[in-house]
Amino acid sequence: MAFVPSAYPIQPLGPVPCARPVRPIRAFLFDTYGTVCDFLRPLTAAFAGIARQRGIDLDAKALAVEWRNAYARATFLSAGFGMPFRPLKELHRENLLALMAEHLSVPLTEEEIAELLSTWNRLEPWPDTVAGLHRLKRSAIIAPLSNGNFDDMVHLARHAGLPWDIILGASVAQAYKPHPDIYLKSVAALCLEPADVCMVAAHQVDLAYAAGHGMHTAFVIRRDEFGGAIKPPNATPPEDWLSAAEVHPEAQWTFVAEDFLDLAAQVENL
Amino acid sequence: MAFVPSAYPIQPLGPVPCARPVRPIRAFLFDTYGTVCDFLRPLTAAFAGIARQRGIDLDAKALAVEWRNAYARATFLSAGFGMPFRPLKELHRENLLALMAEHLSVPLTEEEIAELLSTWNRLEPWPDTVAGLHRLKRSAIIAPLSNGNFDDMVHLARHAGLPWDIILGASVAQAYKPHPDIYLKSVAALCLEPADVCMVAAHQVDLAYAAGHGMHTAFVIRRDEFGGAIKPPNATPPEDWLSAAEVHPEAQWTFVAEDFLDLAAQVENL
Repeated sequence: MAFVPSAYPIQPLGPVPCARPVRPIRAFLFDTYGTVCDFLRPLTAAFAGIARQRGIDLDAKALAVEWRNAYARATFLSAGFGMPFRPLKELHRENLLALMAEHLSVPLTEEEIAELLSTWNRLEPWPDTVAGLHRLKRSAIIAPLSNGNFDDMVHLARHAGLPWDIILGASVAQAYKPHPDIYLKSVAALCLEPADVCMVAAHQVDLAYAAGHGMHTAFVIRRDEFGGAIKPPNATPPEDWLSAAEVHPEAQWTFVAEDFLDLAAQVENL
Repeated sequence: MAFVPSAYPIQPLGPVPCARPVRPIRAFLFDTYGTVCDFLRPLTAAFAGIARQRGIDLDAKALAVEWRNAYARATFLSAGFGMPFRPLKELHRENLLALMAEHLSVPLTEEEIAELLSTWNRLEPWPDTVAGLHRLKRSAIIAPLSNGNFDDMVHLARHAGLPWDIILGASVAQAYKPHPDIYLKSVAALCLEPADVCMVAAHQVDLAYAAGHGMHTAFVIRRDEFGGAIKPPNATPPEDWLSAAEVHPEAQWTFVAEDFLDLAAQVENL
């Protein structure tokens, strides 16, 4: 399915607030896949494992990126068209089977599918992630605001040592990004106002939607998210959005940080 | 409002499974108010603080028990009659105002109300709670399955040092105990079957409902929950249910434990 930005029925909602918060931030909500954890290397290793076991050639890194991007498209379109909420693992499975049908003469076994699917729950935190989360947790509630479902987030947190206070996001809202509910119901779950909360992401489209609902925003640059590929300053969607790290701030975000420790330092110095 | 058990439209669902689990327990879900934390002493202290500030006499302990029991009745009836889900803090507030109208000539101030309400988020863990939860967490997911809402559970966990993997319960289900949804949606959130999960509570009615849905059960005796009052072996509802600690197992629960460390030891020795 082609990725057609002009078809998005959900647009970022308005101007981006950029002022420093006038009252303390009570909660930081985190995009997880890419922002908190590296998906590229674990998924690449999983596809490489399949190739090795089968004795075939596969471009494991390209498959990792394609599977991730298929997920991003599926959830974005699901939200935009108001489709019924389905477990992320079902979407991953469908996308995986469609993707691998182009690359394998013998279909994936159930065991291989399970191994690949479970890789999403065994991603690796970025080097600063765990220390940064602990430091931010001193002053505020921390929680994922991810498309990952409750069970995905529990298993990933246990694997990666993520010290969440609570798991918010898709399961709370029964909706995927960028549906308004995923932001608004996550904030409401904490009985806070959007202006009390900061969305943290390496993907500026996520921040744009959060800002449209009145949340503060922290753009954390994950230069290595796509193995070195960097999105040019004036890239046009779609392709550059989906397969390259964002390093150029494209709006006046509340914070722009090199990593979670840098973000924590900026918050402490407000 | 009189407490009329015969009016409950929700009855425990069936026979209680008592066999030792045939496969490992993947998650322990905890009643929180009374089982994980002591409500009596913190609430008593809060009412005593009001009396002291006002220079009046109040039976602070009796008020603590009455306010807690008003909450238990309100949520039970809300679930039983399928009433729309309302935040717990609203129910607490209404119950508090009704209760104190009988005891105060000058109504509570907003500041006093806020102080009393927030006490629910500053309860104290029982001495074994934190160590026991850490030990159970080595082998399984741990989460509250409480009537406390998401925000209540976050603040209580931060205060009491409760190392939850995820917060389940009323907010996930948008229903209070003993509505089936609070048990079934909490289990489903983890993509587990009821037989993979163990409900932990000091209140056997809670375990009876969990067992009716096929969950395992752990009865943890909290002798001090009501400051020394012990429910007699053959007590008849309603009053003895609500104001006395349960120490006599009334069914074949999967586990009967003196505290969370005892439960952890039993689980490790399965």
